[in-house]
Amino acid sequence: MNGLMMNQQLTLASIVEHAERVNGSAEIVSVTAENPRHRYTYREAFSRSRQLADAMSHWGLQQGDRIATLAWNDYRHFETYYASACSGYVCHTINPRLFPEQLVYIINHAEDRFVFLDPDFLPLVEGLAAQCPTVRGWVVMASESHMPATELPNAICYESLVASGSADFQWPPLDENAACALCYTSGTTGNPKGVLYSHRSTMLHAYATMMPDALAISRADVVLPIVPMFHVNAWGNPYSCPMAGAKLVFPGNKMGDGETLCALINEEKVTLSAGVPTVWLGVLAHLKASGQRVDSLRQIVVGGAACPLSIMEEFDGYGVEARVGWGMTEMSPLGTVNASASQRDSYSDEAFAKIRLKGGRPIFGVQMKIVDDAGEELPWDGESFGSLLVRGPWVCSSYFKLEGSGAHAREAGWFETGDVATIDPDGFMAITDRTKDVIKSGGEWISSIEVENVATDHPKVAEAAVIGHYHPKWSERPLLIVVRGPQGQDLTAEDMLQWFDGKIAKWWTPEAVEFVDELPHTATGKIQKVALREMFKGYTFSS
Amino acid sequence: MNGLMMNQQLTLASIVEHAERVNGSAEIVSVTAENPRHRYTYREAFSRSRQLADAMSHWGLQQGDRIATLAWNDYRHFETYYASACSGYVCHTINPRLFPEQLVYIINHAEDRFVFLDPDFLPLVEGLAAQCPTVRGWVVMASESHMPATELPNAICYESLVASGSADFQWPPLDENAACALCYTSGTTGNPKGVLYSHRSTMLHAYATMMPDALAISRADVVLPIVPMFHVNAWGNPYSCPMAGAKLVFPGNKMGDGETLCALINEEKVTLSAGVPTVWLGVLAHLKASGQRVDSLRQIVVGGAACPLSIMEEFDGYGVEARVGWGMTEMSPLGTVNASASQRDSYSDEAFAKIRLKGGRPIFGVQMKIVDDAGEELPWDGESFGSLLVRGPWVCSSYFKLEGSGAHAREAGWFETGDVATIDPDGFMAITDRTKDVIKSGGEWISSIEVENVATDHPKVAEAAVIGHYHPKWSERPLLIVVRGPQGQDLTAEDMLQWFDGKIAKWWTPEAVEFVDELPHTATGKIQKVALREMFKGYTFSS
Repeated sequence: MNGLMMNQQLTLASIVEHAERVNGSAEIVSVTAENPRHRYTYREAFSRSRQLADAMSHWGLQQGDRIATLAWNDYRHFETYYASACSGYVCHTINPRLFPEQLVYIINHAEDRFVFLDPDFLPLVEGLAAQCPTVRGWVVMASESHMPATELPNAICYESLVASGSADFQWPPLDENAACALCYTSGTTGNPKGVLYSHRSTMLHAYATMMPDALAISRADVVLPIVPMFHVNAWGNPYSCPMAGAKLVFPGNKMGDGETLCALINEEKVTLSAGVPTVWLGVLAHLKASGQRVDSLRQIVVGGAACPLSIMEEFDGYGVEARVGWGMTEMSPLGTVNASASQRDSYSDEAFAKIRLKGGRPIFGVQMKIVDDAGEELPWDGESFGSLLVRGPWVCSSYFKLEGSGAHAREAGWFETGDVATIDPDGFMAITDRTKDVIKSGGEWISSIEVENVATDHPKVAEAAVIGHYHPKWSERPLLIVVRGPQGQDLTAEDMLQWFDGKIAKWWTPEAVEFVDELPHTATGKIQKVALREMFKGYTFSS
Repeated sequence: MNGLMMNQQLTLASIVEHAERVNGSAEIVSVTAENPRHRYTYREAFSRSRQLADAMSHWGLQQGDRIATLAWNDYRHFETYYASACSGYVCHTINPRLFPEQLVYIINHAEDRFVFLDPDFLPLVEGLAAQCPTVRGWVVMASESHMPATELPNAICYESLVASGSADFQWPPLDENAACALCYTSGTTGNPKGVLYSHRSTMLHAYATMMPDALAISRADVVLPIVPMFHVNAWGNPYSCPMAGAKLVFPGNKMGDGETLCALINEEKVTLSAGVPTVWLGVLAHLKASGQRVDSLRQIVVGGAACPLSIMEEFDGYGVEARVGWGMTEMSPLGTVNASASQRDSYSDEAFAKIRLKGGRPIFGVQMKIVDDAGEELPWDGESFGSLLVRGPWVCSSYFKLEGSGAHAREAGWFETGDVATIDPDGFMAITDRTKDVIKSGGEWISSIEVENVATDHPKVAEAAVIGHYHPKWSERPLLIVVRGPQGQDLTAEDMLQWFDGKIAKWWTPEAVEFVDELPHTATGKIQKVALREMFKGYTFSS
């Protein structure tokens, strides 16, 4: 027997309708190339989204067609998000930092019909447009007076396009399971894979991120998303903020500029912001150098990479609560948030310093478990670590055009994150490794990250990496590869191995230490373990 | 084209699974007849829910069968909520304050199979059991040692029942549209009508109530629901609190006892509570009499009836933010919350005193509009008032066994609340009247409540009511009926009419004033306008 409640579909158009009526006067402020502080209201934003959608309705597109964006966080990108998704198209956000050949692959794989791009990316796009046969037009996100000269075959001026549409445009009714957005993961191996979000998954994720123990977004907030809209929808901020009526502050292409970010925070009275650790290091450096404060800011959310305790402690000093968040493109992205500071009283200083670095507790809607090699579930004791599996209404079930491949699924109904984690009895999850980096020694797992953390704590070590290397008896043993620091020219393998005494389990201590001049890195600064394993392919443990 | 996200159903079992793993150690404290402070964890609660569900699985019930409860807010009621709904049955909460004949009507209409009752209600139930042929058993919510003697034919001891089940019970998979709960409205006319909630509607409502601008529930909270679990699921607290991991404090049958409530707040460190104005008057009276404070409390939510400003201002003095909430049984119940205090800085003192009394802004998911007699939508200007229509995923589409009657629907797809309201440009809704009480004078509407408010402000008036009465020219005109106060023996109709000068629009001023010794009231203290209209049926305006 079914309940007798209204069958209202969870679609992004409901955000537009709510925000236009209830939060119409709240502001969106953007840094753009044309204007250091473009400023208007949600009411104007969505009126222009409707105009844009009306203009797009004459393009002869089908429901589900992909509309790509290559753009910074600003109001035009925001308008494009809603115009495309609420029309029944799929807003395909592309990371402009990818290599050109990856961009071409992604545009062709997605079969993008139109691409919206910031003028900043015009040179990039001009070089690859000829290789993108599915694209019928390139919309340059500029006003007529700022429209750059271009060789693109079908360049369209964004503002002319908007001006050609009517604000009376009505969104078509959509099923909540319809696709609304597409984002490709940039895996370290193989081609990028597309995650195809639905209206339903996006709405439920947005509800969940607003909760007090997640991002805690209210109408009283002024939110500065420093996480890019071109990557996993800026953690849902472009959806949750109009739902709440929070003022949005978009940093445009100044996402890495500590000075501009601090100015935005202080001038716009930002209360809440989200970004990767690097962003916060930039902000803190500017605050230290300038002596400024950020008194309006109450909370930052740090994700995308492990957050050093120093960032949290420095923000403590500014009266700002730093929350760690963890997620993935395949999770929309939010999986866990660490709001332990909201229960600060329940922990000793020592326990708190430890717990606050963890990824946090699953937000309601995300289920997790950790399993061993045999797929057996491991206990939530904070010690056992295993492969982290997740599921939930905003977790990806298959990649775009790879439906049914099940490549990612270790167990039916669960998504394998590729991370190795512990979970404690209170549900605090901590990533200890990547599945492919964990060292399998005699049937037991050794966390490469924990060994690396101990190694890099050595004052004479500049950088260190641990890889699992073939061992005839134990199958794999940890091999530690070290770059000596400026004061470390006399550092020996014996010194290094002694350093581990009492710091980790005896059998976790590396089997051997090798010194190199530098480690291979990815474009984003991560150590390339694949390359490292390749370098040491022929290596043999001496014992 | 559909998105490629997991098809996880929104069911109440997901709350159990989340809370058992992530919030297992959070507490539930209950006042019961057996124990002034029963105390255990969510983990234990849900383990017992599984036991109860296992025991119930031997009763030969069908999915969708109704299981009734007649119980106070306590842990056994909480266990029954989940055991029944997560098993695929419908938890039918019954208001024990109804008249016995209404109880019989409701039990028979719902075709309840089993009724769970607090021992407090045994005498009541013994008197009507014979008239309830669908009920196969009566579960008395007591331990074996506290099991009262009873003449009920099939009385079952709750604790024996729980003890007979296994905690390994696994919830059956359910569709999110399946019914999970049933609650009857106690209309002033006609038979009670049942609102049949679905798992989906209940889950979405719970997500929405947790948002910072709604009830703002986090793991750091200790929540005391003084709104009954027998009426509209205690505003969703029994769902949202285990989702968040908030500690729950159940007041048992002490919901009207200011002293016990204050003791619970202080001893259990309650941070958040919800109740009707009468409850808060009792709490404030006890605080004043005892000189106690309620320092842990940060926020109360006041709903169910208009909240006097004095309650809010007195709580201001205790450092507690009072938020007005508005909703209905048909809305699960939450429709609006007034969190204007969270944006206190944006208002002048005068504007704030006015705005904070309003019902508040629609929580995301609830759509509203106001329409005139012709069904035309009225502007959100804070002045125009019309019939309030709502829709959303947790708004009722039809009443139980009245499917398709459309009796409540003024316009397809919308639910007519029966309230008359204004909505201001920021979305703040204020109830101005009931549709049936509004006075229709010359095609325009006069709010009976606003006229009454002015009248009762007169120092010589004890009580006043306004009804629309037949007028040959204007169709209806307001007739003011007054009970003179102790100092009001000399109050004349002329005095009274002069009192309105400059306070309301000239044409809203009552056509005539009549004095009576007392006004007819309902059991809950509301003025019975139906009876009043009956009393003045033969009345003729003199002009």
